[in-house]
Amino acid sequence: MILFTNDYTEGCHPAILEALTRTNLSQQVGYGFDEYSVHAIELLRAQLNNPAADVHFVHGGTIANLLVLNAFLKSYESVIAAQTGHIFVHEAGAIEATGHKIEVAATPDGKLRPEDIAPLLQKSPPYHTVKPRVVYISNSTEIGTTYTKAELTTLSEYCRANGLLLYLDGARLPMALAATPDLTLADIAQLTDAFYLGGTKCGALLGEAIVINNPALQPDFKYHLKQRGALLAKGRVLGVQFATLLQNGLLFELAAHANAMAQKIARVVQELGYEMLTVSETNQIFPILPNTVIDQLKDEFGFYVWKQVDAQQAAIRLITSWATPEEAVDQFIVALRKYSQG
Amino acid sequence: MILFTNDYTEGCHPAILEALTRTNLSQQVGYGFDEYSVHAIELLRAQLNNPAADVHFVHGGTIANLLVLNAFLKSYESVIAAQTGHIFVHEAGAIEATGHKIEVAATPDGKLRPEDIAPLLQKSPPYHTVKPRVVYISNSTEIGTTYTKAELTTLSEYCRANGLLLYLDGARLPMALAATPDLTLADIAQLTDAFYLGGTKCGALLGEAIVINNPALQPDFKYHLKQRGALLAKGRVLGVQFATLLQNGLLFELAAHANAMAQKIARVVQELGYEMLTVSETNQIFPILPNTVIDQLKDEFGFYVWKQVDAQQAAIRLITSWATPEEAVDQFIVALRKYSQG
Amino acid sequence: MILFTNDYTEGCHPAILEALTRTNLSQQVGYGFDEYSVHAIELLRAQLNNPAADVHFVHGGTIANLLVLNAFLKSYESVIAAQTGHIFVHEAGAIEATGHKIEVAATPDGKLRPEDIAPLLQKSPPYHTVKPRVVYISNSTEIGTTYTKAELTTLSEYCRANGLLLYLDGARLPMALAATPDLTLADIAQLTDAFYLGGTKCGALLGEAIVINNPALQPDFKYHLKQRGALLAKGRVLGVQFATLLQNGLLFELAAHANAMAQKIARVVQELGYEMLTVSETNQIFPILPNTVIDQLKDEFGFYVWKQVDAQQAAIRLITSWATPEEAVDQFIVALRKYSQG
Amino acid sequence: MILFTNDYTEGCHPAILEALTRTNLSQQVGYGFDEYSVHAIELLRAQLNNPAADVHFVHGGTIANLLVLNAFLKSYESVIAAQTGHIFVHEAGAIEATGHKIEVAATPDGKLRPEDIAPLLQKSPPYHTVKPRVVYISNSTEIGTTYTKAELTTLSEYCRANGLLLYLDGARLPMALAATPDLTLADIAQLTDAFYLGGTKCGALLGEAIVINNPALQPDFKYHLKQRGALLAKGRVLGVQFATLLQNGLLFELAAHANAMAQKIARVVQELGYEMLTVSETNQIFPILPNTVIDQLKDEFGFYVWKQVDAQQAAIRLITSWATPEEAVDQFIVALRKYSQG
Repeated sequence: MILFTNDYTEGCHPAILEALTRTNLSQQVGYGFDEYSVHAIELLRAQLNNPAADVHFVHGGTIANLLVLNAFLKSYESVIAAQTGHIFVHEAGAIEATGHKIEVAATPDGKLRPEDIAPLLQKSPPYHTVKPRVVYISNSTEIGTTYTKAELTTLSEYCRANGLLLYLDGARLPMALAATPDLTLADIAQLTDAFYLGGTKCGALLGEAIVINNPALQPDFKYHLKQRGALLAKGRVLGVQFATLLQNGLLFELAAHANAMAQKIARVVQELGYEMLTVSETNQIFPILPNTVIDQLKDEFGFYVWKQVDAQQAAIRLITSWATPEEAVDQFIVALRKYSQG
Repeated sequence: MILFTNDYTEGCHPAILEALTRTNLSQQVGYGFDEYSVHAIELLRAQLNNPAADVHFVHGGTIANLLVLNAFLKSYESVIAAQTGHIFVHEAGAIEATGHKIEVAATPDGKLRPEDIAPLLQKSPPYHTVKPRVVYISNSTEIGTTYTKAELTTLSEYCRANGLLLYLDGARLPMALAATPDLTLADIAQLTDAFYLGGTKCGALLGEAIVINNPALQPDFKYHLKQRGALLAKGRVLGVQFATLLQNGLLFELAAHANAMAQKIARVVQELGYEMLTVSETNQIFPILPNTVIDQLKDEFGFYVWKQVDAQQAAIRLITSWATPEEAVDQFIVALRKYSQG
Repeated sequence: MILFTNDYTEGCHPAILEALTRTNLSQQVGYGFDEYSVHAIELLRAQLNNPAADVHFVHGGTIANLLVLNAFLKSYESVIAAQTGHIFVHEAGAIEATGHKIEVAATPDGKLRPEDIAPLLQKSPPYHTVKPRVVYISNSTEIGTTYTKAELTTLSEYCRANGLLLYLDGARLPMALAATPDLTLADIAQLTDAFYLGGTKCGALLGEAIVINNPALQPDFKYHLKQRGALLAKGRVLGVQFATLLQNGLLFELAAHANAMAQKIARVVQELGYEMLTVSETNQIFPILPNTVIDQLKDEFGFYVWKQVDAQQAAIRLITSWATPEEAVDQFIVALRKYSQG
Repeated sequence: MILFTNDYTEGCHPAILEALTRTNLSQQVGYGFDEYSVHAIELLRAQLNNPAADVHFVHGGTIANLLVLNAFLKSYESVIAAQTGHIFVHEAGAIEATGHKIEVAATPDGKLRPEDIAPLLQKSPPYHTVKPRVVYISNSTEIGTTYTKAELTTLSEYCRANGLLLYLDGARLPMALAATPDLTLADIAQLTDAFYLGGTKCGALLGEAIVINNPALQPDFKYHLKQRGALLAKGRVLGVQFATLLQNGLLFELAAHANAMAQKIARVVQELGYEMLTVSETNQIFPILPNTVIDQLKDEFGFYVWKQVDAQQAAIRLITSWATPEEAVDQFIVALRKYSQG
């Protein structure tokens, strides 16, 4: 069975395994001070156009989120997120476990705009509520949508005008950037106080790069990594991977492939007259299909039924990855056409 | 320069890289439910002689310790450790960050015995102090020493008689078992409520296996992994490694090599008439050498000066690993003999 | 200006000051083991019809909530509340600060029913979300409404059938019971796993009585008090007050007075043809009045404008207390009639 | 039986009960913004000679300590204390429960000096240990000793030179100041970043005044009070008490009485040739008496046996309070003389 359930069903890009093998027996200092990590940080800073960016490689997205938010928030401060935000729904209370409340706004497309945030800033009486301090967004979002450069700029300006920090969960940032031609890593660095750049879903075995742009938030961040069990003894494992992915644009090439695979299916979905639950140009799409079609597809392909839309049809979630072969996509398309005619 | 600073200065055993490469493109479900992790758990349960053992692979030792201790302790309960315990000294307050106090006993050899623990159980008045609940030990310890089977049995019985749980930090458990012929993994499983078996320091890129033997402590443990950011999307990365290490005794073979390399140096140290700071049969040794000798060795070899013993001499820490070539050890021995004559 | 802003604007019932004075120089042991606290616990257990109830007096409602919820919840477990729940809105993230997520249901009347809870029990995938464990309700609620005995019984049975604990925030439980003739303290003890009985809003200087009915949740609770700074050295201060309030039904007499004062206003509100925002038979009422009337009332009386209903009218919150003189209420009524004619 | 077990065995100074009664029915706003609290803060600021001091009244010492330390410390920062420090021994892990490690120095007299602190500032390697940030001292200490003005000045300068904050637990600060003529509240305000001034042990029913002198640490502190359940609805209860105690020097008069009572006993102890365990000029003394004498005293007086000194004798702890009648002291002296002759 071919799985479209996730973008972490395969291992890693072969160039990473080659690099791990090539560097394997070199003796290196631990905890992220190895030469590969140092090199990867240099590569990333260059692409960020910020030589002073504070960069830390960690093993996953939930740890990245909890490290950053706990470091940025005082005990009584909260983080604002969309109701679909990964931190609110699917991290088993990781942020609350560090002592902080998440306040949410319901938004149809998983994106936050100033008007979603403004009501959450009206608190009374003083001291009896939490005090919002960080705005958390995902790009691409948990439902495949993306921010335009204009939207991000507006949001960034709003945050700065209101004493809020802007943090971007970039588990699928490579896909978002690949799908948004006028938006670059350097823009992200300029518009956010911090973000993380995803590796796990974009060709790495594991690894995300936390980037802290705001100098006031940089000091001592590595203490948080150690205290939360995120300072890998063999930091090289992450350094080698990011050095590989950041060389010659491999990361964004892989993201573009993941996007292209999903979008190839999306075009057929639309051609067949089906609606989409969300507007997505990335590697996650949510076609709304008749239950009968879904049932037949299920026998051959792995995917999640996301949401029952009415008695006859449901939205399914299809995710493609850097490793999805075009043949798998074509096979899905053939099946979809066939069952749609039935 | 040859490094004897740590047992995580190299990558991983080549068999692991081969296994990662071989399995790389197989599509697998995430979060540790992949077939490699399932297989690794089966292999481990067989060696534990406990088919009901609860096993979870995580990425490092600090996270293993904080996951287990936070899961086992109620808010007001404490963990007892030796003053040299890794959780007390070198985890940046990771256990306290989960809300728990560590109570310590000063012991000369880094090991805990009932008489070290007993005074910490005398608390008064009720409710004004924390309530001890877990005893944390390391084997081998942070200073290279090891528990005999008799010592562990006595400690285990004492804990059970006093309503205490026994948890063993096994970052270097393979080395301890390789150095203690009558002690097996199955013994450890029987004598402790939980422990972790180290991979990072024994040939893996990263990875430790948490084993919960006590059935009352098993339910829902995976929630803790997710909440603390330790549930890897690509759990296969750990599963493949442990499946490799646990096959045909590779893990213990690598540990035996690490031990043998350090002990080869140890024999020469003693032959030259130097003392050791601690009694070690494992891969960490602490020779006490004249400062002049240390200064000369430092130009060629990397190691830590552990403790100034008097004005003329200091204990240094030498650590060998699964990857230490015998030539490196021989080179060190030649240098040590030369500077000792000087 | 007469304040209807809250039920804690005055000090305490004179009988409490007399009791504090009478017992003042008697030497007593500390931390709640004094004879007055012991006596108050006996009085309460008798009214609960549960000689084994575990009772702890604390200084306020937020501390009561955080003590109970933190004691009952494991790290990854959540508490379910109404969106208007005090713990969710007005405790500055106190529950999250102990590491726990609050999950909310939007309910129009501030009350929870099984159908509000059921959707929150559907979680997937396993381990990626928090796990609901406690249901938190308030009676009377934050918007003045009350549970009937039948509603509480249904909710209690639902919780037990679904492995959920039921905890009742009783900041204004005396008012709720005074307004619900067939519901008694003994019923509350039987239907909940724990609750607290409010003193601060019902005639005490400060103090709430936490009652743990479920024996499995009782052991060691006092440790939590000490650890969160809630074990008063002079526990007598709370014991003397509760002994006074629980003697001869004083507590419920005061609550009935508070209710009667608000309901006297409510009758006039309705007679004048105004709507109420919520159905309340307790000491909190939310009349919807024309803005012009509100503006005039504001010059003479203190109260909160709760919610703008439309351009012309708003709901205001009026709260009366054990100490509200009937003349103050009459004065308000006179003013309301006058401005309503204008 | 007359109790010398503690300085919180009685209620409060009668002037407080009178003030509570006098102000009882005045309607006041809640949460510490009432006129009595405002007035008490003004009185205190005047005595501190610091009109900008940030003052918060709370209900007890443990909550004061955990509020201040949690507010001042980042996640990875630690507090340094003497091994006898109340926060380390007798607060049931309250500080650790907020996520912070306490690092201790063993000192014979319960006082910290720069040389006790210096070794704790030597940490290596970076990021693997906690980072000390606050120095916690008690005055008078848990064993009755006091700091001279010179000692406090030296310590304060050392802290400032080393980037450490100095926080003083003043549960018995009135006794310390009463026993140290050249040291004033204004000195304490100048030499520390924050402290609390004890009320519970000095004539109040309950209450401590947290004073934050360092302006950088003042913003938003009241959020912490609310979040930890320490913002009393009827803040007047604390305001009235402190207004009473701070008027006309009542607080220090009561402390002087407490000291005088203990010192009267101390003079007889010494006259009879007994040693003291610690040098105390305050209301806690630790005479070393023969076991036979202790056994006889125990039948008539309540006190703790603090420490077995050898087979024949033990140190006992005697505490007197603002309420201790001189006759009780005289009775103890008579008994001590009698049994000592026996």
